[in-house]
Amino acid sequence: MEFTAQQIANILEGTVEGNPDAVVKTFAKIEEGQPGAISFLANPKYAHYLYETRSSVVLVNRDFTLEREVNTTLVRVANAYESIARLLSVYESMTQKRSGIHPLACVAESARLGEDVYVGAFAYIGDGATIGSGTQIYPHTVIEERVSVGENCIFYPNVSVYHDCKIGNRVILHSGCVIGADGFGFAPAATGYEKIPQIGIVTIEDDVEIGANSCIDRSTMGSTYIRKGVKLDNLVQIAHNVEVGSHTVMSAQVGVAGSTKVGQWCMFGGQVGISGHISLPDRTQAGAQAGLHTGRTDGRPLMGTPAIDARNFAKSSAIFKKLPDMREEMMALRREVEQLKLQIENTKNRE
Amino acid sequence: MEFTAQQIANILEGTVEGNPDAVVKTFAKIEEGQPGAISFLANPKYAHYLYETRSSVVLVNRDFTLEREVNTTLVRVANAYESIARLLSVYESMTQKRSGIHPLACVAESARLGEDVYVGAFAYIGDGATIGSGTQIYPHTVIEERVSVGENCIFYPNVSVYHDCKIGNRVILHSGCVIGADGFGFAPAATGYEKIPQIGIVTIEDDVEIGANSCIDRSTMGSTYIRKGVKLDNLVQIAHNVEVGSHTVMSAQVGVAGSTKVGQWCMFGGQVGISGHISLPDRTQAGAQAGLHTGRTDGRPLMGTPAIDARNFAKSSAIFKKLPDMREEMMALRREVEQLKLQIENTKNRE
Amino acid sequence: MEFTAQQIANILEGTVEGNPDAVVKTFAKIEEGQPGAISFLANPKYAHYLYETRSSVVLVNRDFTLEREVNTTLVRVANAYESIARLLSVYESMTQKRSGIHPLACVAESARLGEDVYVGAFAYIGDGATIGSGTQIYPHTVIEERVSVGENCIFYPNVSVYHDCKIGNRVILHSGCVIGADGFGFAPAATGYEKIPQIGIVTIEDDVEIGANSCIDRSTMGSTYIRKGVKLDNLVQIAHNVEVGSHTVMSAQVGVAGSTKVGQWCMFGGQVGISGHISLPDRTQAGAQAGLHTGRTDGRPLMGTPAIDARNFAKSSAIFKKLPDMREEMMALRREVEQLKLQIENTKNRE
Repeated sequence: MEFTAQQIANILEGTVEGNPDAVVKTFAKIEEGQPGAISFLANPKYAHYLYETRSSVVLVNRDFTLEREVNTTLVRVANAYESIARLLSVYESMTQKRSGIHPLACVAESARLGEDVYVGAFAYIGDGATIGSGTQIYPHTVIEERVSVGENCIFYPNVSVYHDCKIGNRVILHSGCVIGADGFGFAPAATGYEKIPQIGIVTIEDDVEIGANSCIDRSTMGSTYIRKGVKLDNLVQIAHNVEVGSHTVMSAQVGVAGSTKVGQWCMFGGQVGISGHISLPDRTQAGAQAGLHTGRTDGRPLMGTPAIDARNFAKSSAIFKKLPDMREEMMALRREVEQLKLQIENTKNRE
Repeated sequence: MEFTAQQIANILEGTVEGNPDAVVKTFAKIEEGQPGAISFLANPKYAHYLYETRSSVVLVNRDFTLEREVNTTLVRVANAYESIARLLSVYESMTQKRSGIHPLACVAESARLGEDVYVGAFAYIGDGATIGSGTQIYPHTVIEERVSVGENCIFYPNVSVYHDCKIGNRVILHSGCVIGADGFGFAPAATGYEKIPQIGIVTIEDDVEIGANSCIDRSTMGSTYIRKGVKLDNLVQIAHNVEVGSHTVMSAQVGVAGSTKVGQWCMFGGQVGISGHISLPDRTQAGAQAGLHTGRTDGRPLMGTPAIDARNFAKSSAIFKKLPDMREEMMALRREVEQLKLQIENTKNRE
Repeated sequence: MEFTAQQIANILEGTVEGNPDAVVKTFAKIEEGQPGAISFLANPKYAHYLYETRSSVVLVNRDFTLEREVNTTLVRVANAYESIARLLSVYESMTQKRSGIHPLACVAESARLGEDVYVGAFAYIGDGATIGSGTQIYPHTVIEERVSVGENCIFYPNVSVYHDCKIGNRVILHSGCVIGADGFGFAPAATGYEKIPQIGIVTIEDDVEIGANSCIDRSTMGSTYIRKGVKLDNLVQIAHNVEVGSHTVMSAQVGVAGSTKVGQWCMFGGQVGISGHISLPDRTQAGAQAGLHTGRTDGRPLMGTPAIDARNFAKSSAIFKKLPDMREEMMALRREVEQLKLQIENTKNRE
């Protein structure tokens, strides 16, 4: 790409302050600025970098007040963060999509592929699988028998999709993620655990993105559901029979146990654990490492294990830290109360 | 498959209530019932679905009492949950096992394969490896040099088994799991950490199932052991030199640090962490997210970090939530005690 | 290998006690000793095994005092643990490095490979990638476009490296690890989350080792950095824009959220979680499962969520366990104080 400050202002409906002909070819963080790069300033914490940056152009909020002169060209926009995201999307859309079937791919004869599909070297498409138009299957990804994949998906290298799963449109699966492995179901017997076959599937709806090495298990029967627009980070675990509601976001290393129903528009911090067989309401929020054992929430963010109101957790944690002092104080009170009892006893006796 | 209600009752030693000729071809959850499907009702919580289900046949417990008429045919059995598991196994056993060496597989000349082995496209079997009869190696799985694999195993796509590991019979490894990567061993030196070579192996005994993207590290010397019948869920970490005792079950994202010995028939909830160099007795149970730092248990389920008796944890957690109130009360007591001291002092002075 | 006790003593600058001609061909844990093996004793906890071991040679510390006779030959050295590590390295260095391009590998014409490079079966090297001399790329590993890899690296099977990432010399990547997947960045909108393209890279410096199934996300712009000598265990998550300082060590299942800067020579136990946008000083230490929400530390080891001084955590945890008793005691104090108040009131009234 190669844009002038003025062209960028035009794209973003912004105004140029400085050299409208300043040319940028790449992006850089403001603190790592370089000539020919565009940066952005959204967080006021980083404002001091603006006066030193070597980037040729910097996006700033319309209402940002300069404290002194800058050596760079500013493009003022309504929202610098949203604008850089928009610009990154324009940039990304200019990279060429991959297409064509690599001669070293293995595509079953009975598989049906749409138009402009890419299947990379060593990718494997099993019997009866269908791949929608514009979808890109990177090298080494395995799509097992009868899986259906929608249009314009990207599956990065080394993804595994087990048989019969259904995947919507514009779904992004990052490397190493495993869709449709058996749910963890065993019946105890005297001589060991007996496997309960998992004959269900996984259904992933449109516009879902799933991070590297995340796992979505197939259902015992019926389907595990990842609803429209869900975004899962890396190393997330979704157990069998779970339903994750639309537009819910889970940070890395979250785990959801079996048969739980997670609402829409929820947000979970890293390493959160969610128990099985519960139902979490829409817009549930929980901070990192929280442990949700019930579906009871009052709509406020949760923290801790078992999870409680985050503000309550913060207060209780502050006191937890001082429990040794509190205990000392309690023992002191005990001694003083005993002392008082004695004194009153003595007073009485003297009467 | 296609069975009548009567045939199912015969298989499960049950009795038909309704149409013995009702035909089922598939399974469905009771709340997602459909004509031609069989469902089951084990948890009384779901009993209301029985009166609305569209499934043609429903398995119920022998002693279940109907509250009103149903539109479906019932098959009454001793234990509906066990019966559906049995039926799923019958169904699963009817799906054809894969066999044959795919022309795009890479099998070293010195590897030895038993009878009826399946090796999928792009699977890799290294020098001197042995694969037992009836074992299925799915596409893209890597078996390194001199690994021995028993009979009737299933290794799903994208599994990695490092050199020299030993794997028993009927072992199931799900996609992305890594057996025998180097244990995490380094010796600190002034200029950085020096790697301690990990020349041991991993031994996995019969009837073990390991979930997607789980990792079992090779031993520094000798072997890491996963004993007979162990079931590990997804994203589990077993460090070097660990031994996991027979029939122990670990939920997703559990981590066991180096050189720890876990007993038999233990059960661990999701995200449990177990310290290194400890020994956990047989039948240890710990709830989700617990942190086990010692091998001391009194045989009751554990919770929390550091882990304590689960009932104790529940009680203490209930109070943790109220610590701010408790602190207020303590400060109130302090003020009142000071007041009392003053009053008594005054009383004395007046005497 | 085949060494006599005397040869081993010479290598390690130690002294033989017993048969200098005792021959060893392999290594064994002292408790699993066998004729022809060498073991070591470093931890005094295991001293009793010395008197029963069947190993032909045992390394012990120079100052170790025998309690009775042994049947094995001792080699006394300054530090038995360091010595066994040194010996394992000698042993490891004798195993032949792999080299040569397997005929089933897929190497882009525009890729540049150094001397003595190994590229295994089905490995994939994309357009414009460079692989330094002596580097070993195991079967099934994917190196995407324009990635640069230094010299003498080992990438085990099923590793995925996304486009444009930069990897130094002597870097070890274990199976299933994913380098350069998209950072988790989305902008909320009314109809769902919009993806913020992640156009940065991952930079991994020299002498880094990364465990199986760990994930290092690419930066939004610029680079995520894993500095020289860092050692990451399995299933670790490093989010976008993070910098991990030189010689920092993270145990399995640690997660670091976006834009955080971790200092040098830090140590983190398993399952530790580190919040985003914070800066951790050099030599920060945190115990297993700790949750670090701020960069404030006083240089002492941390524990708990939110993390506090580990000794404080131990004390507070001991009291947490007794909170039900403490509450009882508080209620008893309350009753007694009320009683005292009444008595004093009565005394006054009597006056």
